[in-house]
Amino acid sequence: MKGLCGNIINNELEVEELAGRIGEVVKVHGSIYKVRKMKGFSFVLLRTKREVMQCIAEEAVVLPVEESTVILTAKVVEEPRSKKGYELHIQEIEVLSEPYEPSPIVINQKLVDTSIENMLDYRMVTLRNEKQRAIFKLQEGICQGFRRFLESQNFTEIHTPKLVQTGAEGGANIFALNYFGQEAYLAQSPQFYKQMMVGVFERVFEIGPVFRAEKHDTSRHLNEYTSVDFEMGYIHSFEEIMEMETGMLKFTLAHLQEYYEKELELLQVKLPVIEEIPVVTFHEAKEMVSREFGRPITDMEDFEPEEEKLLYECIYKKTGSEFVFVTHYPSSKRPFYAMETAGNEEVTESFDLLFRGLEITTGGQRIHSYEMQVEKMRRREMTVELFESYLMMHKYGMPLHGGMGLGLERFTCKLLGYENVRYTTLFPRDIHRLTP
Amino acid sequence: MKGLCGNIINNELEVEELAGRIGEVVKVHGSIYKVRKMKGFSFVLLRTKREVMQCIAEEAVVLPVEESTVILTAKVVEEPRSKKGYELHIQEIEVLSEPYEPSPIVINQKLVDTSIENMLDYRMVTLRNEKQRAIFKLQEGICQGFRRFLESQNFTEIHTPKLVQTGAEGGANIFALNYFGQEAYLAQSPQFYKQMMVGVFERVFEIGPVFRAEKHDTSRHLNEYTSVDFEMGYIHSFEEIMEMETGMLKFTLAHLQEYYEKELELLQVKLPVIEEIPVVTFHEAKEMVSREFGRPITDMEDFEPEEEKLLYECIYKKTGSEFVFVTHYPSSKRPFYAMETAGNEEVTESFDLLFRGLEITTGGQRIHSYEMQVEKMRRREMTVELFESYLMMHKYGMPLHGGMGLGLERFTCKLLGYENVRYTTLFPRDIHRLTP
Repeated sequence: MKGLCGNIINNELEVEELAGRIGEVVKVHGSIYKVRKMKGFSFVLLRTKREVMQCIAEEAVVLPVEESTVILTAKVVEEPRSKKGYELHIQEIEVLSEPYEPSPIVINQKLVDTSIENMLDYRMVTLRNEKQRAIFKLQEGICQGFRRFLESQNFTEIHTPKLVQTGAEGGANIFALNYFGQEAYLAQSPQFYKQMMVGVFERVFEIGPVFRAEKHDTSRHLNEYTSVDFEMGYIHSFEEIMEMETGMLKFTLAHLQEYYEKELELLQVKLPVIEEIPVVTFHEAKEMVSREFGRPITDMEDFEPEEEKLLYECIYKKTGSEFVFVTHYPSSKRPFYAMETAGNEEVTESFDLLFRGLEITTGGQRIHSYEMQVEKMRRREMTVELFESYLMMHKYGMPLHGGMGLGLERFTCKLLGYENVRYTTLFPRDIHRLTP
Repeated sequence: MKGLCGNIINNELEVEELAGRIGEVVKVHGSIYKVRKMKGFSFVLLRTKREVMQCIAEEAVVLPVEESTVILTAKVVEEPRSKKGYELHIQEIEVLSEPYEPSPIVINQKLVDTSIENMLDYRMVTLRNEKQRAIFKLQEGICQGFRRFLESQNFTEIHTPKLVQTGAEGGANIFALNYFGQEAYLAQSPQFYKQMMVGVFERVFEIGPVFRAEKHDTSRHLNEYTSVDFEMGYIHSFEEIMEMETGMLKFTLAHLQEYYEKELELLQVKLPVIEEIPVVTFHEAKEMVSREFGRPITDMEDFEPEEEKLLYECIYKKTGSEFVFVTHYPSSKRPFYAMETAGNEEVTESFDLLFRGLEITTGGQRIHSYEMQVEKMRRREMTVELFESYLMMHKYGMPLHGGMGLGLERFTCKLLGYENVRYTTLFPRDIHRLTP
């Protein structure tokens, strides 16, 4: 038996530790991203955890193939022309591992120049591209920002089950499976559970996977995505939820600016500025788009994607905002737990948030009263008994409450200016794709 | 159209803000947890986000039923006998909502005195018990500790798909479902994906759900649980993974001590002290238990749960440690991607971490070489072609790497001294339970 001390051994240095070591000989590890042979020397790009570092190797140094993993012994040499103020002059390369064969897709150019299908089929290598991986470093930053903000507002983070007996959204868009002889479903959202937990902690959030069996084959739909959900009690109106989300977005944009500058610069991201987010009712929005663009309104109950884009154009022109809250969606288009507007049962105390023309959030106030909820379910001809477990919280007392869900990949997509949500999903799942 | 300012409205004060307001009249909201009528006045316990606050109401104040949600108008009165140094004298109670009927289970005593079945059937109310909910506040703290530590060690947080085409662990313990006409599975672990991401970010982690279709009906098995996974590249030996986990646990225990003192006190948790974690090989451990307790060894390839408990007793007696790393598990019991020990193919560069006699972590070094991996799969008579997508990372180059997975609910269970992992799972899923 031997003891472990619990001190982390670092045999090699992190890139961040090099700046203070001009003149020293150091060891750093990483992957050989790219070799550019010049006259008498080579540029060697080393891919480390977060940065691709330019190093210089004299002709005498034997260079391993790209995607080899190595430990470099190198001198840190002052170099005012380099962004970092230094460069690494390689003295020795210890090869730790070598690829079996080169990747069929070139990954070490500025862009991975291939179809989206190839990009995704070879995801485990195409993600090694400097810009491709920066997308997901930023996505980490987005979650970090959301989480830190919600923590600061006394939200408790929870983990709710993804195997469920009853779907939250209802409808056919739900994956079913055999669970030891009974039918189970994959959760379409943590809706029921986050509401239950409002009765416990008042404010809760979860960042986790949700599953939608939708057959849509579009640039904005996925069958599995990461949902950022929060739910809060003791609200006075659903507008407080929009206030909270606005605060969360502001905080997160500032967080990215502070801690993810490298990636923002690499991807040339222009972060939106949020001062105030304009609010329009669904009805106003429909009419505004119809009026401004001379479009007849064909569906008074829902937006077409084209209308969302046109609304964005309108709002941006009028206010300069890239976000817009649309409120009071028709009751017929919202789930059974949506709180209807007092005095007008046709609409709900609900909202969507559109960002650069795409819906990224759905939220609203929920029914907290047992009698009101049961009455609404009966009105919708639902089988109340199937929801017995859900309704227990209403029965035994709930505060006024509401919340929202934000699609992480959609938000990342619009923030970084991509046209297809697959670019900002680590390993996307759609009706054609279950691998890698 | 109107503008939202994005400033969070707080109509009522947080408990944390009261200490500085002795003598003032304040508003606080919460749920009426318990009313105790005394002679001439009542004690009213108000359940707020994180604390249950004792308030005093004169006889004249009309008290709502328990589990009503309210806004109290109250005076903050200095009271040296109170832990907080003050108490709240209620002047007015505004009732926001009332329960439809009282909970059939008493939730406002020190303990929820009922069977575990009832406890779970009425989870949405039993979690409102002060101690019950403290379990999950601490669980939040555990995740927060893990996450902050891993961030400090330059790990990138990722979100990997739970719908997969190939299971990581293999075997029959996997949930299957129909995915648009093809068979899909629920991920048993993020194993393949976290390995792929080591080739991208070098160090990654994920905290998310995993699914096991095991038919075990024990106090330590669940069919869905939260797995804390990390994976790191450029290791020199699998012991660095144990070092990293030791560091993570130390950090997290200190984090709980600093930020979750309230809950630790309420649940009377005695945190373990980690100085060094003892390490024994699987072979040594089997022999140690056999020798110390005079038990014949019946299975040289695996531990019985009873043996894990006896090993804990041994190690605790010898070293005072409540944790023990067991290393070099037999190759036959480890997955195909486990790195075998050089010179002894019978055992692997792997470990389990046992805490108070229960396995909470499995980890180890993985095979990084394409040829070695394919050779091992052939040796195991696996269909290599089925793993084409997984093997691409090996083919195009991978660093030496390894990682671990920790069961969040099991760790919480042992940390808080429970005997059944269901007590430390928010909404447990087992072979009999899919609801609530």
